[in-house]
Amino acid sequence: VRAVILAAGAGKRLRARFNQPKPLIRLCGLSLLERNILSLRACGVREFIVITGCYREEIEAHLGDGRKLRVDIQYLHNPDWQLGNGVSAFTFRPLHRPGEKFLLLMADHLFDQRVLRDFLAQEPFLPEDQVLLAADRRLDQVFDLDECTKIEMAGSLPRRLGKDLKEFAAVDCGLFLCTGALLEALARAIGRGAYALTDAVNILAGEGKLRLHFVDGPWIDVDEEKSYRQAEKMLLQSLIPPKDGFISKHINRRFSLAITRQVARTGLTPNQITLVSLLVAAASAFAFALGRPLWGGLLAQCCSILDGVDGEIARLKFLQSKYGALFDAVLDRYADYLVVMGMVYGWYAQTGEAAAFLLGMLALTGLPLSMLFKEKFQALTGQTYIPEEHDGILRYLPANRDGRLFLIMLGGLFHQVPLCLLLLALVTHLQALARLVKGRQLMRHQE
Amino acid sequence: VRAVILAAGAGKRLRARFNQPKPLIRLCGLSLLERNILSLRACGVREFIVITGCYREEIEAHLGDGRKLRVDIQYLHNPDWQLGNGVSAFTFRPLHRPGEKFLLLMADHLFDQRVLRDFLAQEPFLPEDQVLLAADRRLDQVFDLDECTKIEMAGSLPRRLGKDLKEFAAVDCGLFLCTGALLEALARAIGRGAYALTDAVNILAGEGKLRLHFVDGPWIDVDEEKSYRQAEKMLLQSLIPPKDGFISKHINRRFSLAITRQVARTGLTPNQITLVSLLVAAASAFAFALGRPLWGGLLAQCCSILDGVDGEIARLKFLQSKYGALFDAVLDRYADYLVVMGMVYGWYAQTGEAAAFLLGMLALTGLPLSMLFKEKFQALTGQTYIPEEHDGILRYLPANRDGRLFLIMLGGLFHQVPLCLLLLALVTHLQALARLVKGRQLMRHQE
Repeated sequence: VRAVILAAGAGKRLRARFNQPKPLIRLCGLSLLERNILSLRACGVREFIVITGCYREEIEAHLGDGRKLRVDIQYLHNPDWQLGNGVSAFTFRPLHRPGEKFLLLMADHLFDQRVLRDFLAQEPFLPEDQVLLAADRRLDQVFDLDECTKIEMAGSLPRRLGKDLKEFAAVDCGLFLCTGALLEALARAIGRGAYALTDAVNILAGEGKLRLHFVDGPWIDVDEEKSYRQAEKMLLQSLIPPKDGFISKHINRRFSLAITRQVARTGLTPNQITLVSLLVAAASAFAFALGRPLWGGLLAQCCSILDGVDGEIARLKFLQSKYGALFDAVLDRYADYLVVMGMVYGWYAQTGEAAAFLLGMLALTGLPLSMLFKEKFQALTGQTYIPEEHDGILRYLPANRDGRLFLIMLGGLFHQVPLCLLLLALVTHLQALARLVKGRQLMRHQE
Repeated sequence: VRAVILAAGAGKRLRARFNQPKPLIRLCGLSLLERNILSLRACGVREFIVITGCYREEIEAHLGDGRKLRVDIQYLHNPDWQLGNGVSAFTFRPLHRPGEKFLLLMADHLFDQRVLRDFLAQEPFLPEDQVLLAADRRLDQVFDLDECTKIEMAGSLPRRLGKDLKEFAAVDCGLFLCTGALLEALARAIGRGAYALTDAVNILAGEGKLRLHFVDGPWIDVDEEKSYRQAEKMLLQSLIPPKDGFISKHINRRFSLAITRQVARTGLTPNQITLVSLLVAAASAFAFALGRPLWGGLLAQCCSILDGVDGEIARLKFLQSKYGALFDAVLDRYADYLVVMGMVYGWYAQTGEAAAFLLGMLALTGLPLSMLFKEKFQALTGQTYIPEEHDGILRYLPANRDGRLFLIMLGGLFHQVPLCLLLLALVTHLQALARLVKGRQLMRHQE
């Protein structure tokens, strides 16, 4: 499926604030246009047609031929963009291939990845003479309802669309899966002097050729500062993985999302953030070694928070890579090792007790077991071992990384390094043994 | 595909030696009949018909309905088994379904897993009026050529089969992929008083309905003591994995196969052997801790050798399980940890040097990195990271388990525990860093 993106308008309200054409306004490190293209690329779309109007040069200079984003971008220019967005959409007509289905979206509407994916999955079911419109009937959740194009329904079909309808059951999300039927309707609407996309869509609705797909995830129309802030919030919220550790979920994410919001504006890559996280762990180790457990503990917790940031930035800016995941996994182990060695050294340096080394060795050997088990389980079964689901009551044991580093922070704050090492050793090895039992149950079921 | 196994003969020569019906003679812990059934099960065959004659009761009592082996077994009895094996094979006729292709094999011929797999893969290509016979043209490698049924060729087709042919290009392996054509030929041969399977096969050859599939892996006909020994050798050799570490390949396998040969006769399970291996590691740790590095080193090497035995037994007796692999992975890590902690304690107890703990911590943290990297790589890419292939020149670094334990043995033999710990720390961490670089190359290629 090719995607046609309308980026012809002037977008005055945001222009005043950002001094940038609206499609090029940066949000979390990417322009709105780039974000839409990369979101669709993640759903398998590789060919894009961008329709420009008011800011032709700026937009073409910004995106080029798409090679940088690893997609193919063509441009169409609509000199009459001021007439209405129906005229802009109609510019695509000469490029449309017989029988082709294409996606049509606005450069300034953002969608959650899952919403796009679900919508694109409808493609095989759309008849050749119809058009599918993404709509939202969760009216209480729609942002800035006043500004939305409303949809009046007749039973399960849309009857009429318009900004000022009184009776409506859903709103238009500005995302279409089109066939030639849309281009024909546009021709007729323009012929009678109706230049808005909604005019053509109303023709289709009147002829029973418009179908709706109700979205059930976040989306937003970014057209002034309030919705810009809301969009940023929506993007950051989408970064929280469905299964998160207890400490991650309730403490770390608050901080990591705030950091990610700032870091996204810079050019820092996820791997660079992983490295910074290792350096913070080294600083924590030094603090513990020099007899400053308070600082050591706080820095260990910072390391834990940064551990979330690299992945968040990767997802937010479409920079995920398998190597990034591997790099992160290995460096996190080293970070853990450093912090615990710092604790052991600090304890020993102050007291001369060999017990520091004994507990240190037990804790160090326990650290990598959680990951070892999970990766081996996945490599053998092809399934992910999810602590929050499979560990049962032991999921509250602070034996996963977020829990371990939290324990270390507490140990530092309360000057309880020996107790902390003892607990680390206990929880990590206890978890490993419990998982050997649990893994047996899980895998026996499969065979 | 259903498999028909001929187990009707008297097998006098081996009977004298083992005091057992030939199909029930145990080889590496399984009877010949069980091994054939389990080998075929591993290739996806689930339904078996066993044709009995001389030892009906013994065989039925031995296998039952197959539930123990997780297959379905039916029995057919041939009271006239003494007439010849063609008559036994013909017993299957009433059970044959129209158009069905079935496998026919002798209970006392053993095949390498790969040979069976390749042969079964021919099934879709066999026309409905033909029969496919597994044959071997590597005459210099065939065991006991005199006893074999020879095949005279006419171009690429078999012309005639017989034990006493002078001119022959291949020998019959006793493994057939059959259609109704074989049963028709058997009916005609028996009708004229020719009761051997070879008689029917010769009819098919004469009519151009016999095709040959040339095997290129090990197989053997077990019919007297010499070939029984050879079969044992063949099975043990088949246990060596294609990619083995340097020390495993050149040292450990010699010992582990000898141990496996003995252990296979007992009821010890792979997981029990894994546990024994952990106990040996604990003994090694004690020896090091008590200042007996010579014993510590030797026991560590024993642990390394036993690390091969659990997998060998699992493959040899068809007891592989995903849980077994997980259990082995976790317990091996604990075994490594124990041995190194024993070394550290022994050194410290004798000298009081804190350096023992420092090097000990560095070595302990390095131990799990090799596995961690490999499992993460596999979980992310779905591909196996093979040290012998991907580590380049660093594959000679003793940083994988066989190498590490060998290093520990040398450290013990030469009373060089400190040096040994230093080397362990160096090679494991060096390997981890080198793999981070290598992994980057490998994974960038994929994306």
